[in-house]
Parts: sequence; structure tokens; C-alpha cells
Amino acid sequence: MLQQALQQLLPPALLDDIQRVEAIVMERVQSRAPIVKIAGPQLLAASDGRLRAALTLLAAQLGSYDLQRVQHAASAVELINAAAFVHHELVDEAERRRGIVDMDARWDHGVALMIGDYFFALSAGEMALAPDPRVISYCSQAVMNICEGGLITVMQAAPQAPALEQYYEKIGCKTAALFAAGCKAGIALGGGSEAEIERLGQFGYDLGLAFQIVDDILDYTGEPADTAQAEAATPAHVPAISGDMQRGVITLPLIYAVAQGGGAELAAVVDTQDTAQLTWATSEVRRLGIAPARADAQRLVEQALAHLAAFPASAARQQLEAISRFVLQRAG
Amino acid sequence: MLQQALQQLLPPALLDDIQRVEAIVMERVQSRAPIVKIAGPQLLAASDGRLRAALTLLAAQLGSYDLQRVQHAASAVELINAAAFVHHELVDEAERRRGIVDMDARWDHGVALMIGDYFFALSAGEMALAPDPRVISYCSQAVMNICEGGLITVMQAAPQAPALEQYYEKIGCKTAALFAAGCKAGIALGGGSEAEIERLGQFGYDLGLAFQIVDDILDYTGEPADTAQAEAATPAHVPAISGDMQRGVITLPLIYAVAQGGGAELAAVVDTQDTAQLTWATSEVRRLGIAPARADAQRLVEQALAHLAAFPASAARQQLEAISRFVLQRAG
Repeated sequence: MLQQALQQLLPPALLDDIQRVEAIVMERVQSRAPIVKIAGPQLLAASDGRLRAALTLLAAQLGSYDLQRVQHAASAVELINAAAFVHHELVDEAERRRGIVDMDARWDHGVALMIGDYFFALSAGEMALAPDPRVISYCSQAVMNICEGGLITVMQAAPQAPALEQYYEKIGCKTAALFAAGCKAGIALGGGSEAEIERLGQFGYDLGLAFQIVDDILDYTGEPADTAQAEAATPAHVPAISGDMQRGVITLPLIYAVAQGGGAELAAVVDTQDTAQLTWATSEVRRLGIAPARADAQRLVEQALAHLAAFPASAARQQLEAISRFVLQRAG
Repeated sequence: MLQQALQQLLPPALLDDIQRVEAIVMERVQSRAPIVKIAGPQLLAASDGRLRAALTLLAAQLGSYDLQRVQHAASAVELINAAAFVHHELVDEAERRRGIVDMDARWDHGVALMIGDYFFALSAGEMALAPDPRVISYCSQAVMNICEGGLITVMQAAPQAPALEQYYEKIGCKTAALFAAGCKAGIALGGGSEAEIERLGQFGYDLGLAFQIVDDILDYTGEPADTAQAEAATPAHVPAISGDMQRGVITLPLIYAVAQGGGAELAAVVDTQDTAQLTWATSEVRRLGIAPARADAQRLVEQALAHLAAFPASAARQQLEAISRFVLQRAG
């Protein structure tokens, strides 16, 4: 389910509907294969919490809301997110293991591969329950983008311009495309016009970019404790070495830290495995790269809100605004 | 494209339509990710050749045929097959490498994982082009079955009854389900009744089982040369050690060979890596297990033809019969 701090921002009726989506996806991941029955719900729960479902439902509420119709699209979006999460973890874990895969891990990998595929198939089956070719096409396009995103590597942290271009292309594919697809699916099912669908897709895309930037910031600063006052929460755990830095993954805070004076020495750390250097580099990125990365996220959320402002004021719009601001607060 | 020997059995008009499907899927695998652009068509070509598309098109021809509608379903089935093929190869290769994955292979694995996902997404997008909830639901159910099949391992070659049960459940999920889905999708789009859809699904399922058994036989006997006279062809290459046996994969010929007198000694070879023993076991399976496995395939094709006999005689029915007999001849 949604993070507690976000739940507090949303009305009970919406939380009930999100709970309905949660129940659908949990029911779907039952399978006659015992391993899917066991690992499926665990992996589904691990993919982060139904934010995309909330966006899809609220997008539909901007038009005429019919939970019976939109719940399938919202479930499909969550299943796609879970599939992508599982497959991404798979690639990621292979990297962490630095080439050595033991017997147990191999079995786990086969299982994770198949369960990811299973989730993708469930998402297609879910869309068939309230078939709308637009929804299917938004979602399948998002999956293609996610795959393309998985194949884009940000090759170097400098020079800044190409590094930023690669980074934004990657997170656009990897994260923002599915946010956009959920929003478009929701408002399409809510009876929105082509122009409204397009505009809300832009909202979702910008919000998705901001969400991913915040995620990448939190990899350096540590996750805030999940309390009702997330705004005031101090980070629960500030990592000595950023996970992304350890794995040699170049994200926005590093790109900005290099440009803000970290220089070539900092950029070169990406290729090392030396603990002292990685620790130094992590704190340098915290010192130099977080503020400008947060400014980008801020700008993108403002852009997202501007797209939203084109819709008439409503409770749903207000809640979409609250979610947008919440995305930023996570990195506060 | 289809094997040459099969092409000779089918009319030019059908081959043109299969070519149309081939052109669609090749066009679809274009992507802005350069690696997908390069590897996508290669991997698509490597998945075996458009037999499922032929079945889907012919199934539609049993009713009222509209290529514009059915071409998307046929393309979706081929894309699913390609996706499953790529992901299956991935699990398989990991096993072959016995736990050691080098840097290059790791990169290849990430690419193969993403390209498989990309193919799945393309199949969903393809179905959205001529949306029919039944087609989407047949296909997504088949993908779930394929995943379940990937998670079933035939644990032991004896005793015969549970070994056969596991084997048939595995190949039913892994191979037969998609044959069935293609047939059901085709005749559904051709305007068939529920009973006809069900019956043609049974035809596809039995034919799929036979197809997989023949594949498993060929792993021991070697692929026949692909000539116009496949019936007369001598095997191009008889393997000293069966690939399945080398990897410890238990298939029908081994199960029958153990039951036909090979005994516990033969069953135990599955766990060895000793070349002499594997060579001996391969030849024992050829001596004892091929004939009964082929008898199963024969029986299943007859069952498939019996389902087909319920449909009025037509050119399409004749061609489905020809394909069914061809499936057997591959193991002749």
C-alpha cells in the first residue's frame, strides 16, 4: 500500500478504491505453479506502493469516474510496474554479484524472470477485462519504453550536456513513461478529450521524472523515516556509500556534483571499487549535487502542476496536486 | 519463415499471408534503442518459423477470413513465441554456463531480458490494433502458462507414471498452450462459435504436444536436413550426446527408455557430467526411447485430426491436416 505519509493526504474513499486495486492484483498473482503463489505476492508487495494506481484512479476522476472500468487499468499499471521492478532487480543483482552466480541464485533468477513475465501477462489479461484499445496501447508503449530505458546506460558524468541528455532519456523511459500511461489511461476511461489525455500524459511524465530524480537523491541522502510527518522526518539512515555509486550507475546528483566543482577526480570514482574513494565521493555528491538535482525535481513538479492547472478545479485535481507536492517532500 | 519442406505443402496465397505477418513483426521490432534494432530482428528470426502464425491464419479460414483483422493476432502469437524463446534461452544458457557468467554474457543477458520484455509489449500493442478481448485473454493466458511451464521441472525419469505426468504438464504449458491460443484466436476472429473455438483449441493443444515431443526426439536423433523431401532425408547430424541429457533435462524419450529396460542406471546418468556415460546413455535412449515417444506423438496427432474432423471439409481444414502430418514427419 501507499506510504503512510501519503495516505494521510488522501480521502478515505480513494484509499478504499486503491485497496480494491490492491485486492485485485493480489488475487491475480495466484497461480497453479506453487512458486508463483509464494513468490508472486512477495514480489508484488516489494514493488513500490500503488502510487501509479492512485494516479490512474484520480485521472479518471477528472472526468466521469467508474471504478468498475478503471480498476482494471489501474491494476494493469501496477502489474506492469511490478514486472519491470522484478526484471530490473534481476539485471541489477547480476551486476552486484560481479559475474559469479551460484546455484541458488540461478534458480531464483529463473523464477524471477518467469514471475516478471507472468506479471506482464496478467497486465494484458487485466486490460482485456475492460478492453479499450487506447489503454492497451498506452500501456504496451510504456512497457516498450521501460525496456528501452533498461538498455540505456548513462556512459559518463561529464561533459554535463550529453550526460544530462542521457540521464533524462533513461529516466523518461524507465519511470516517467508508465506514470504518463497510467494518467492517460485514467482520463481516457473517464471520457477525456484527446487534448486532455495528451495534457494529463504530460503531467504524469513530468511527475514521473521528478519521482525518479527524488529516488536517485534518496540513494545518496537515505530514505526518510515513513512517519505521518515525512516533511519533518530526519533521514533514518544516511549511507556511507551510495548504492548507485557502488554499482557505477551515474545519476543526476553525481552529474551535477561533477559540474559544480567535483571535477574529473569525482567522475573517475564511478569505475573504482575502493571503499575510501567511494565514501569520499558519496559525501562530495551530497555536498555538491543534491541541491541542483532537487531544483530540477522542483521545476518538473511545477511544470506538472501547470499542466494540471488547465483542468477545472475539483477534488481530484486537488489530490493530484497533493501527490505532486508529496513526491518532492520525500527528498525534503 | 516456415521450413522449406512445409512451404511446399501450403498454397502460395497462404504463404503470401504468412509473409505479411513476417513483415509486420519485423517492422515492429524496430526501436529507437539501437541494440533492439540490431538484436531484435536476429532474435525474432531465431525463434522457430511462423508455424503458429500459419495455424492462426488457417484457423480463421475455417470461418470467414479477414486478413486485416487476423494478421494482428497472428503477429501477436509470433511475438509471444519469440519473447518466450528469448527468455527460455536465457535461463537455459545460464544453466549451460554452470554458474559462471562473464562480463559480456552479463550484458547480453540484460539485453535478452529486455528484448524478451519488448516482444511481450509488442504483442500486447499488436492485439490492441484489432482489439478483441477474447484474443487478448487467450494470449495472456498462454503467456501465463508458458511462465508456469518454465517453472515446472521434471524431477525424475522414473517411476513412469509421475514422470509422464510432469512431462506432459510441462510441455502443455510451455508449448501446447500457445498453439491452442493461436488456433482459438484465429477461429474466434473468423466468427466461430464457442464450441468451435473450444474444439479447435483442443486441436492446437494436441498438435502442440506432438510438436514438442518431436522436438525432444530430435534432440536425440538429430535434425533432419531441411529439403523438399524431408520424409526421405537422413539426419544431417546425429549428436553423440543429447543436449537435453547434457543439461540434465528429462524428456519423453528418456522416460520411456528407462521404463523399457534402461533402468536405474540410465535414470542416474541425468546427474552426471561424465562424457562416456552421457554418450552411452544417449545411444541407449535412441535404442529404447524413440519409438514409444514417437508413438505418443502419433497418437496425439491422430487426436488432433479427430478434433479437426468435426469441421466441414475445406481447403483450410486440408492444410491444417497437412501441417499436422508434417509435424510428425519431422521425426520420421
